[in-house]
Amino acid sequence: MSPFTGSATRTPRWRHLRVDRDGPVATVTLTRPDKLNALTFGAYADLRDLLTELSRERAVRALVLAGEGRGFCSGGDVDEIIGATLSMDTAQLLDFNRMTGQVVRAVRECPFPVIAAVHGVAAGAGAVLALAADFRVADPTARFAFLFTRVGLSGGDMGAAYLLPRVVGLGHATRLLMLGEPVHAPEAERIGLISELTDEGHADEAAHSLAHRLAEGPALAHAQTKALLTAELDMSLAASIELDAATQALLMHGEDYAEFHRAFQEKRPPKWRGR
Amino acid sequence: MSPFTGSATRTPRWRHLRVDRDGPVATVTLTRPDKLNALTFGAYADLRDLLTELSRERAVRALVLAGEGRGFCSGGDVDEIIGATLSMDTAQLLDFNRMTGQVVRAVRECPFPVIAAVHGVAAGAGAVLALAADFRVADPTARFAFLFTRVGLSGGDMGAAYLLPRVVGLGHATRLLMLGEPVHAPEAERIGLISELTDEGHADEAAHSLAHRLAEGPALAHAQTKALLTAELDMSLAASIELDAATQALLMHGEDYAEFHRAFQEKRPPKWRGR
Amino acid sequence: MSPFTGSATRTPRWRHLRVDRDGPVATVTLTRPDKLNALTFGAYADLRDLLTELSRERAVRALVLAGEGRGFCSGGDVDEIIGATLSMDTAQLLDFNRMTGQVVRAVRECPFPVIAAVHGVAAGAGAVLALAADFRVADPTARFAFLFTRVGLSGGDMGAAYLLPRVVGLGHATRLLMLGEPVHAPEAERIGLISELTDEGHADEAAHSLAHRLAEGPALAHAQTKALLTAELDMSLAASIELDAATQALLMHGEDYAEFHRAFQEKRPPKWRGR
Repeated sequence: MSPFTGSATRTPRWRHLRVDRDGPVATVTLTRPDKLNALTFGAYADLRDLLTELSRERAVRALVLAGEGRGFCSGGDVDEIIGATLSMDTAQLLDFNRMTGQVVRAVRECPFPVIAAVHGVAAGAGAVLALAADFRVADPTARFAFLFTRVGLSGGDMGAAYLLPRVVGLGHATRLLMLGEPVHAPEAERIGLISELTDEGHADEAAHSLAHRLAEGPALAHAQTKALLTAELDMSLAASIELDAATQALLMHGEDYAEFHRAFQEKRPPKWRGR
Repeated sequence: MSPFTGSATRTPRWRHLRVDRDGPVATVTLTRPDKLNALTFGAYADLRDLLTELSRERAVRALVLAGEGRGFCSGGDVDEIIGATLSMDTAQLLDFNRMTGQVVRAVRECPFPVIAAVHGVAAGAGAVLALAADFRVADPTARFAFLFTRVGLSGGDMGAAYLLPRVVGLGHATRLLMLGEPVHAPEAERIGLISELTDEGHADEAAHSLAHRLAEGPALAHAQTKALLTAELDMSLAASIELDAATQALLMHGEDYAEFHRAFQEKRPPKWRGR
Repeated sequence: MSPFTGSATRTPRWRHLRVDRDGPVATVTLTRPDKLNALTFGAYADLRDLLTELSRERAVRALVLAGEGRGFCSGGDVDEIIGATLSMDTAQLLDFNRMTGQVVRAVRECPFPVIAAVHGVAAGAGAVLALAADFRVADPTARFAFLFTRVGLSGGDMGAAYLLPRVVGLGHATRLLMLGEPVHAPEAERIGLISELTDEGHADEAAHSLAHRLAEGPALAHAQTKALLTAELDMSLAASIELDAATQALLMHGEDYAEFHRAFQEKRPPKWRGR
């Protein structure tokens, strides 16, 4: 538990997600398999609040985001979300869209790597959740579809028009966001949308294996790498190099760096502390 | 016609381009096939003015940019442009180069998708025009060449040093802009410079098919997707997510979003209004 | 020699690098083959100072960065650098990391193209040096590894978290910087990390051939292309287009542009002056 914890308590039960812990690895599973894990207002809110809570606690060092059943996540529920938003006023619509955006910011800004384990459909908000993750571990059944224009909305939902060009380039991003067509695993791998392609049915297993490797390794180094990748997309070269220098100087006073050197001299693997 | 129209009249005749209209789709054709559609001062000026006029009118919902004859566009005319600029003074040179840059800004900022239909050569300014488009629909004869250094000029012409790294990455962009070598269709597709590869001789047809599909679909959603892709290249993640939220809230009050939901409930395809 | 030279003298001898000159082409060779060219404090300092000196002199028009022996560069020396930094205080650590960052800024900002000739290992700081170059000419034995997290440090070393996403996209960059796994030549080519793949054992030769071609061509045009590519990663579209216009107007008053036009009319190859 971090010393920087105040009065806020841990949420006793996440009602719209399943949250599992295995040591430093958390797994968040979308569990509406009969609806292809379509997101509800509650699921968005739980994702936002959970990531905030885990960021504060500092016990989690890697997080897997997975979907139960036939696919990863089919996006916002047509009945429960699209239907409901049609009777909202301007302030409510802005609140809803800010909440979904906050989930993506939380994924990009939380101090641990997030690994999306993708099989089957990752559509709409589901595709953006996977896009916001640090790693997309996918099996050959995975298909991504940024469906927003198909329902009359902007393809730039939840940061997609910011993130996708930075992952696959502006040409592919324009095509995917404007047309909303599915990208199957082979194309997704070719354009850089998949981090690791697994055998069919093995995305979850491979995602957990990666999560444990990251969590049990030099986790502070991983966290800082993520923080710099996120921050430096918005920074100049000169400022980035200055940030790198300060960060590296900080980590050179850390335990893991000294441990690496001792282990190297003693010709043994390092025992990482993550600090 | 937009209500935000003032005293300016429509240009009665475009003398340096052919402009065709088919409902909401405009086609601009470069028509100097004997010169591989080399651009003249008049052609640049007409492109700049036409895009401004079409942006104001709001009747066009997609635009195809094509070239007549053996290729798309061989770039600035060696005799009529390079020759003429050699006797220009500083202010005139700046005016000329600002005009060509305004064409690219107009392509990126006009409120409808621009589809370049590319066959044969797209060289120099022709390559940048294609690069600035939202989609590059090309056939196997297409070849792109950013020839600027070959005539002693900077490869960063008309925004190329901004756009190309964001489309194909900094490594490829450096090679293409510094060396000016041709990129043939297979490599162009591999590095993400082509949006859709067609059979030989079918680029124009496929570009028009895509234009009609975009124009007859949820065109306001497409326009906003384009606007966000363009704007968010220059924005931070946090600001982009805020812009997305406001844009989506706006479109959730739009006609097309409500129509999607009605059509979904009635199990029929939506009738898009583009608003 | 540039007229903008003051009291500073040329360094009489570079003790930590080999520097060769062949007309307008400089070659910098890392020469600790028994240590796979591991970098020392002296080598970093020499790289920083050499690039500054060459930038001031204006006689060099292209630079090749190569490694002697079995590989390009294995990064910072474990004994001489990691060991030494463990007993440094905060100010010294910041100084060291700023120095390494200054090398990368110098590579990106020097007024001539830098070509990394890569065979065998390019690891840690060696991988970032290659990444910062304008061209990576590599043979099939090349492998890149951003090893920083493997020693308990941030993957964002010396600008890597800024540069790598802009070269290969955020997805690949996250994987490479977070995990530190080697990228072999075929994958490096596929994701855009290699500019030119040569036959085995021919990277140095091909890098020199490219350097001479660049140096003997319109070298001022090449220098400006590099400057714009570097600057416009940090600029908006509108500002980039304005910078392009001013740059092109300037070069249109240059000797090479006029020479191109004369040569074109006389149907002979241009004699480039690089000005």
